[in-house]
Amino acid sequence: MQSLYFEDFQEGMELETVGRTVTEADIVMFAALTGDWNPIHVDAEYAKTTIFGQRIAHGTLTFSIMTGLLMRLGFLEETVVAFYGVDRLRFTNPVFIGDTIKARAKVVEKQDRGQFGVVKIEASVVKQTGDVVLNCILRVAVKKKG
Amino acid sequence: MQSLYFEDFQEGMELETVGRTVTEADIVMFAALTGDWNPIHVDAEYAKTTIFGQRIAHGTLTFSIMTGLLMRLGFLEETVVAFYGVDRLRFTNPVFIGDTIKARAKVVEKQDRGQFGVVKIEASVVKQTGDVVLNCILRVAVKKKG
Amino acid sequence: MQSLYFEDFQEGMELETVGRTVTEADIVMFAALTGDWNPIHVDAEYAKTTIFGQRIAHGTLTFSIMTGLLMRLGFLEETVVAFYGVDRLRFTNPVFIGDTIKARAKVVEKQDRGQFGVVKIEASVVKQTGDVVLNCILRVAVKKKG
Amino acid sequence: MQSLYFEDFQEGMELETVGRTVTEADIVMFAALTGDWNPIHVDAEYAKTTIFGQRIAHGTLTFSIMTGLLMRLGFLEETVVAFYGVDRLRFTNPVFIGDTIKARAKVVEKQDRGQFGVVKIEASVVKQTGDVVLNCILRVAVKKKG
Amino acid sequence: MQSLYFEDFQEGMELETVGRTVTEADIVMFAALTGDWNPIHVDAEYAKTTIFGQRIAHGTLTFSIMTGLLMRLGFLEETVVAFYGVDRLRFTNPVFIGDTIKARAKVVEKQDRGQFGVVKIEASVVKQTGDVVLNCILRVAVKKKG
Amino acid sequence: MQSLYFEDFQEGMELETVGRTVTEADIVMFAALTGDWNPIHVDAEYAKTTIFGQRIAHGTLTFSIMTGLLMRLGFLEETVVAFYGVDRLRFTNPVFIGDTIKARAKVVEKQDRGQFGVVKIEASVVKQTGDVVLNCILRVAVKKKG
Repeated sequence: MQSLYFEDFQEGMELETVGRTVTEADIVMFAALTGDWNPIHVDAEYAKTTIFGQRIAHGTLTFSIMTGLLMRLGFLEETVVAFYGVDRLRFTNPVFIGDTIKARAKVVEKQDRGQFGVVKIEASVVKQTGDVVLNCILRVAVKKKG
Repeated sequence: MQSLYFEDFQEGMELETVGRTVTEADIVMFAALTGDWNPIHVDAEYAKTTIFGQRIAHGTLTFSIMTGLLMRLGFLEETVVAFYGVDRLRFTNPVFIGDTIKARAKVVEKQDRGQFGVVKIEASVVKQTGDVVLNCILRVAVKKKG
Repeated sequence: MQSLYFEDFQEGMELETVGRTVTEADIVMFAALTGDWNPIHVDAEYAKTTIFGQRIAHGTLTFSIMTGLLMRLGFLEETVVAFYGVDRLRFTNPVFIGDTIKARAKVVEKQDRGQFGVVKIEASVVKQTGDVVLNCILRVAVKKKG
Repeated sequence: MQSLYFEDFQEGMELETVGRTVTEADIVMFAALTGDWNPIHVDAEYAKTTIFGQRIAHGTLTFSIMTGLLMRLGFLEETVVAFYGVDRLRFTNPVFIGDTIKARAKVVEKQDRGQFGVVKIEASVVKQTGDVVLNCILRVAVKKKG
Repeated sequence: MQSLYFEDFQEGMELETVGRTVTEADIVMFAALTGDWNPIHVDAEYAKTTIFGQRIAHGTLTFSIMTGLLMRLGFLEETVVAFYGVDRLRFTNPVFIGDTIKARAKVVEKQDRGQFGVVKIEASVVKQTGDVVLNCILRVAVKKKG
Repeated sequence: MQSLYFEDFQEGMELETVGRTVTEADIVMFAALTGDWNPIHVDAEYAKTTIFGQRIAHGTLTFSIMTGLLMRLGFLEETVVAFYGVDRLRFTNPVFIGDTIKARAKVVEKQDRGQFGVVKIEASVVKQTGDVVLNCILRVAVKKKG
């Protein structure tokens, strides 16, 4: 996609990304990079004793991959001023090793702030089973054309 | 710290983590892992033309490191049921390459949900200049002792 | 960009990517992943004694980043059958730590092969000084619409 | 092996490397480092719908690992002036997760260029099934003894 | 845990860490970072022909993870002067992909050195089968309170 | 080098590796992989207050890189039975970001154990200033020719 300016966004506009399989390597690398080695993510023996019965991805990994999938669409590549906030982020289902996730986004509000505009995007992540694993509202400040 | 059960949390209880310097390597690895190679994070020439004048860390990287710093305190190591949500996450100042960040957390609410409890934590990230770069509310479901 | 089918490609069509700064971390990670720890890439003391006077990126790293930058444009996302060959790849100038590179691509030939088509792309990598650091011909088999 | 000078190379000389298993982690890390997250490499669900029926390694990953395996032989460690080009690189068979690959190299031509020499090497990568997955000609400028 | 000063250590004091599953990704990343791509660690075909019948983790990876698991306990976070030595390190059993390891530590000697103290720690790593895979003596110089 | 069998080792035999610069990226990646984020390695502000005045590499990183540099010489590639122990490992000087290190090894003892042999190697790591930063004895079980 081309980079979109504030004027290019329309309320109701929808986007969907390609998919990505969440691998054991992703979880290990995310634990590594953040330092969050909670056993529920990286100890297979402990994970067997939890309600999930297996290791689960960090919610913050799913969230981070979601922002990456959306960014790769290119619509904010050179027009983003700041990705400045997130509201009501909920992790609604576990992501297991081998699950494949996609992100969906829908423009739900536009606010003209003078020099730039704010776009509110309802974003969610869905896995191959159809289950929604994450949803939230993203707040992005975007350049205006003029 | 020992793992804390729902009963061990007190409203007003405060925690502070050790620090971590955000390096160029962290930003490159986070861009890599998520696929978010927006030029503002990884193109030094482009970044010179922005209001920041240099590359900035992904807000989601700062957020992810914050969760890692907090988890390393150990208080949720074997008592977390689910880290299920985040509210009002705001990225309030840029984090540049070489900035050193710490996380602070304060218990602001406890809710007994029967089999487990919910703890709301006001979390923030501060850098070496004293500037707050991120704040949010974390929602964690925690095991009960009984 | 949208994924392009064979019929969508036009000879002479040109593409340019965003930029990416090649960091010390990229070179270390590429040495790591490939096992190519030749001192010219990773030994700062040795590199001082060479004609370049400093460490240089692996040509294969520059080439790999180029393919990544081009793929991120999205035009081959779901239409590539196979990226099956490269001709006359030349590394024409060194890439140093801190250099920022962009890729350019130009469709130079289309061949209809019945079930799919072959697109030849002249690709090059340019750094912030304007110097071309790599050029080659890529051969990609692409889906047809029909 | 010792580092070889131009005079040490003989036409017809052959080399073979040890093997390396291409893992899911390698593919994820290469996608990460390059930014090439094409679904054919990293989306297990999408990959099921392709002619390969599963995810395949990036050709550029196989090529990069090949250069690493060859460099680890040590024969160019301190004598390489520049690895300056590649001709007729072809990806002839897919590399799947779990395949083990080795590189083979054969000196096919020597050219004295005065201050240094050029060695042309026919290189290929073979997997455990015996299938050749990649072949190409490498061009390397090498120091002379004198 | 709180950081412990020399005076806080008691001979006979014991610590145990949480567990961590050693994944294929860990072994690949460690081979990458160190450059030790010995086939016994990363060539699945070669590994079938050894007495282990499969790839094994680098002993130095197990040792490095052990120090990480111990450090995460936090007892040395801000009191370590120097981790200056290791004695009689033995790799007593193989660690395979998928094994889950924990570290155990026991204070076996304290030496007052005037400005600081030396603590000798008998450390071992155990896997889910109960087998000890590594043991050694760690020597750590630690701050005194006064 | 060729792989060496037990019979090929001679007491007094010496080896030296090429060099490698220890980068900020190496330290971050090692902290990541092991989970040892002690502030002395990764918090630039804290490190200023220590006797070193700056961040230092993990001793275990230097040790791990040393084993990698030695393995890359190839002399144990297909003849190592087990690298089973380390004695008297001492970290004698700090390694700072940007230091370039090399490993040296000297065969100090051979023991015939019937089916295989044990080789004791005195190994050390030296940096560009000439300072020895690490020394130890490695114990390796090696195949016999017969």
